Amino acid sequence: MALPQPLADLEAVLTETARAVEHLLDELLPLPTGPEARVVEAMRHAVFAGGKRIRPFLVVCSADLFDVPRTQSLRVAAAIEMVHTYSLVHDDLPAMDDDDLRRGKPTVHVKFDEATAILAGDALLTRAFEVLADPNASPDPQIRADLVLALARAAGAQGMVGGQMIDILTEGTSLNVGQITRMQQLKTGALISFACEAGAVLGQARMRERHALLAYAHDLGLAFQIADDLLDVAGSAAEVGKRTGKDEARGKANFVSLLGVSGAGQQADMLSTQAVGHLDSFGVKGGLLRELAAFVIKRRA
Amino acid sequence: MALPQPLADLEAVLTETARAVEHLLDELLPLPTGPEARVVEAMRHAVFAGGKRIRPFLVVCSADLFDVPRTQSLRVAAAIEMVHTYSLVHDDLPAMDDDDLRRGKPTVHVKFDEATAILAGDALLTRAFEVLADPNASPDPQIRADLVLALARAAGAQGMVGGQMIDILTEGTSLNVGQITRMQQLKTGALISFACEAGAVLGQARMRERHALLAYAHDLGLAFQIADDLLDVAGSAAEVGKRTGKDEARGKANFVSLLGVSGAGQQADMLSTQAVGHLDSFGVKGGLLRELAAFVIKRRA
Repeated sequence: MALPQPLADLEAVLTETARAVEHLLDELLPLPTGPEARVVEAMRHAVFAGGKRIRPFLVVCSADLFDVPRTQSLRVAAAIEMVHTYSLVHDDLPAMDDDDLRRGKPTVHVKFDEATAILAGDALLTRAFEVLADPNASPDPQIRADLVLALARAAGAQGMVGGQMIDILTEGTSLNVGQITRMQQLKTGALISFACEAGAVLGQARMRERHALLAYAHDLGLAFQIADDLLDVAGSAAEVGKRTGKDEARGKANFVSLLGVSGAGQQADMLSTQAVGHLDSFGVKGGLLRELAAFVIKRRA
Repeated sequence: MALPQPLADLEAVLTETARAVEHLLDELLPLPTGPEARVVEAMRHAVFAGGKRIRPFLVVCSADLFDVPRTQSLRVAAAIEMVHTYSLVHDDLPAMDDDDLRRGKPTVHVKFDEATAILAGDALLTRAFEVLADPNASPDPQIRADLVLALARAAGAQGMVGGQMIDILTEGTSLNVGQITRMQQLKTGALISFACEAGAVLGQARMRERHALLAYAHDLGLAFQIADDLLDVAGSAAEVGKRTGKDEARGKANFVSLLGVSGAGQQADMLSTQAVGHLDSFGVKGGLLRELAAFVIKRRA
């Protein structure tokens, strides 16, 4: 009988963490009794559409490095998943990417309507900040305020929203690798960095540890994005759970169109290795984060 | 020569406070250099479209009751104005109220485009939380976390967003006064209550004082909304700066359609008087808040 493969273990832990986060999300998004329940139904439709819950996993694994109680890190993990979900709901809108399928299910504006989708996104973003500011996230108000500040920076006009703005504005124009890298660092990288930073904030990590985690997140985020671009080219809609070949159809440059399939794959491998290198000081405790860096680039297979 | 009228004084103080808040908003929304500047231009277009800045005024006056430094209360005032502005930008979208004019200027999706308007709203909401969590809002992290928590509750699915959801869902149906009151308490009342609550949080007010301010805000908010409905019926677009008669055109019940012009006016007067009554314990310090309660119902003249 073959020995258990590390990645198989990782997938089990990923699934277990995802279930724990989903259980908490269910608690954090109760249906109200008034007619406003519709917006919460839409929030829940978006949040419970599945997904690997990579960002929550990063929060939990980063916080585990500093022995933060899971009751705290899971709450922060749930908050970041709300922000990620809100960004998908708004990005899928007809005025943005106009996607009708997400993780194999109808997007919120298709299942409900555009107004409800806009409001559901707004409310998910708002609820995320509420969860971070709630004493259940951490008994220390300084940590709660720092989490809110870091998330707002990552998600705002100088972070995720800024990246989405650039993505929309540059559709049909030819970006170079440097420009695409910056766009992706804002659009997807900033929130991935926040996920790792949140663990460090919760754990009151020393500056050196915080920088190591941010460097890991930086490389991981780009590797993740390149793997996504490879999936967009190579995957079928059934595997990926959303329309594929989208970038090409829209004349959008991405890492694969600029570097080629082989070049992009090499770049992702290099970034994944580099990400792992930043974890040296955490020793054996960094095991799951190391495995994750291998996992995100394997998704393309 | 006539003696100066109290309301004339109030208008001068309102204008002065509005200028101070706008000066700070200008500082808080600098244009970045990358292509993402477009979303910040849209945020600034929305924020600097004018308006009486009633909510910021409520923050500053409430905080003044407890001698909170203006450097702190003005920041919280700027944050609440960002949230109010985001709600207008999203409410004006074609999928929501589809308004092309706001305070006499083109709305954000008309001046820019829908995608930019969605993102500008998202970024304003996010920036508001960033401003509240920043140590400049208060040196005390407990106060900053409490402000974030209270704003998120007021603005989310159980507050402002929930109210907007109800407003959209009930278009064309006949609500009674109780149902409209609840809808408005969520849609506009929750943020007005937060404005007063924020002053109490900044000032670490005792529970009795906090309750008095919340009771004032509750009555003021409803009086304000009834006055708005009276303006919608009686005002011209030139005076009001947006389309009027909108509720009637859409078959939406409001306080005026249910109570009549005279009945609604009496109700607003009663609420204004009642609001003032809650301020007794603040003595002479409550002067501006008392005048504001008279002012918001005089807008209909």
